[in-house]
Amino acid sequence: MSSDTEAMQILTALAERNGVGRDLGVELIEGRAGFARLSMVVQDRMVGGHGVCQGGYIFTLADMAGAYACLSRGGSCLTQTAHITYVSPAKRGERLVGEAVEQTRTRRSATYDVRVSAGDRLVALFRGQWRLLETPVAPG
Amino acid sequence: MSSDTEAMQILTALAERNGVGRDLGVELIEGRAGFARLSMVVQDRMVGGHGVCQGGYIFTLADMAGAYACLSRGGSCLTQTAHITYVSPAKRGERLVGEAVEQTRTRRSATYDVRVSAGDRLVALFRGQWRLLETPVAPG
Amino acid sequence: MSSDTEAMQILTALAERNGVGRDLGVELIEGRAGFARLSMVVQDRMVGGHGVCQGGYIFTLADMAGAYACLSRGGSCLTQTAHITYVSPAKRGERLVGEAVEQTRTRRSATYDVRVSAGDRLVALFRGQWRLLETPVAPG
Amino acid sequence: MSSDTEAMQILTALAERNGVGRDLGVELIEGRAGFARLSMVVQDRMVGGHGVCQGGYIFTLADMAGAYACLSRGGSCLTQTAHITYVSPAKRGERLVGEAVEQTRTRRSATYDVRVSAGDRLVALFRGQWRLLETPVAPG
Repeated sequence: MSSDTEAMQILTALAERNGVGRDLGVELIEGRAGFARLSMVVQDRMVGGHGVCQGGYIFTLADMAGAYACLSRGGSCLTQTAHITYVSPAKRGERLVGEAVEQTRTRRSATYDVRVSAGDRLVALFRGQWRLLETPVAPG
Repeated sequence: MSSDTEAMQILTALAERNGVGRDLGVELIEGRAGFARLSMVVQDRMVGGHGVCQGGYIFTLADMAGAYACLSRGGSCLTQTAHITYVSPAKRGERLVGEAVEQTRTRRSATYDVRVSAGDRLVALFRGQWRLLETPVAPG
Repeated sequence: MSSDTEAMQILTALAERNGVGRDLGVELIEGRAGFARLSMVVQDRMVGGHGVCQGGYIFTLADMAGAYACLSRGGSCLTQTAHITYVSPAKRGERLVGEAVEQTRTRRSATYDVRVSAGDRLVALFRGQWRLLETPVAPG
Repeated sequence: MSSDTEAMQILTALAERNGVGRDLGVELIEGRAGFARLSMVVQDRMVGGHGVCQGGYIFTLADMAGAYACLSRGGSCLTQTAHITYVSPAKRGERLVGEAVEQTRTRRSATYDVRVSAGDRLVALFRGQWRLLETPVAPG
């Protein structure tokens, strides 16, 4: 079995167990070894008075995409630090896509970059660093 | 009227309009000019399989505390970039407190540091940069 | 004249005026609109007792590459915030290459990602945000 | 011997061995367990055409102050990630002071905040994360 097939199996099982993601309507679109693409529609509870998505929900989607990409190789992980740059606002009802790409990975830590977009529009850039653990921890 | 009294009036009105904060159970504890302290209890929907709060909700509390501290001086703002360091996990049912302190503020931008803690335990360190706007935008 | 040809003219003139870069032995390898590649050899004064380059010099190369990519479109800019992740140490005598790619650019600010590498080895990941100015400021 | 006396002994020995710091004119002003204050005068080679210090040198001072504060407790460390916010420019001839304060420290990693100032003026805010090592590595 290729590492990509394995990765998709891990991520599918993960998505089924991920109660936080289910509550937010996060969907797993694509997964490979070291890569994940998730989507989330901006819901009413995520937007303020002007119909703009609170940045924390955009961060959450990005963090989850990064964690999925990290977990796609098996094992367990914890977000250690993360940095986000907001580029354009996301609006009520928009479908956001978070695409996480591996930048570097050693035995103990890994860095993933995530682009959050709405259609062709870039919404945010995220870079996170994960600590890799030997003992399992749930990502949710 | 002192700037601190004014700040608390602004923040009280803001908290009433902040639908995203209300949905998450965020409460305004204290506000002064350039300072805000908010709290949030870690709810079921925020935790994964092992009872640990998803980092995105901790980020959201911190981002909201920073925005409140920024808005306490009047005007309007948008989060531009933010950086978070996770120190210890937050558990289901814990009351998190986010305390935002002004680091620097010019006419166009401002930086706020936020410490998120659970009792005496430090949970996360957050540093955000806000762009200050002349035309009003809702923070929620 | 294409924007890429213009960019290279701007950057060549910039490199000639850049006394800080010259002092550090920074060389302009390639420039296009929104892109720059610089190199720098790790010198004796940049390394500590174990022959490893002090991280500040790696940061400096990355920051300069990002500023060049930003200035390649004309105008003037100031680094506002920057984030660096160190991946592997750089050693005395190694030639480091910093490659800056535009991520987003509005009228007022821009974000550039820089990869610093030594041959095929990734040394550091840098993400910086620049404020765009109407009045000229020297980048050096 | 108190941990603060020990810290100052460690840092004094460190400053003597730190060739990179000596080359830049960095001076150790004060050290305690988990704390360090360094200074550096902005030299000609650090400034561009308009007499403003290249940001990389400000970063270097901050990174060095954070590393000193980290090393003050003994052991060895490596900068893993760092984030800097530039507040005001530093000019030729100004004496910059970098003051590093411990934010959190576990067995494996630690976070230090550094404020860089010139007199009463804040120049930059820095937050870095260090990996703690069992085997010694020179900080310089």
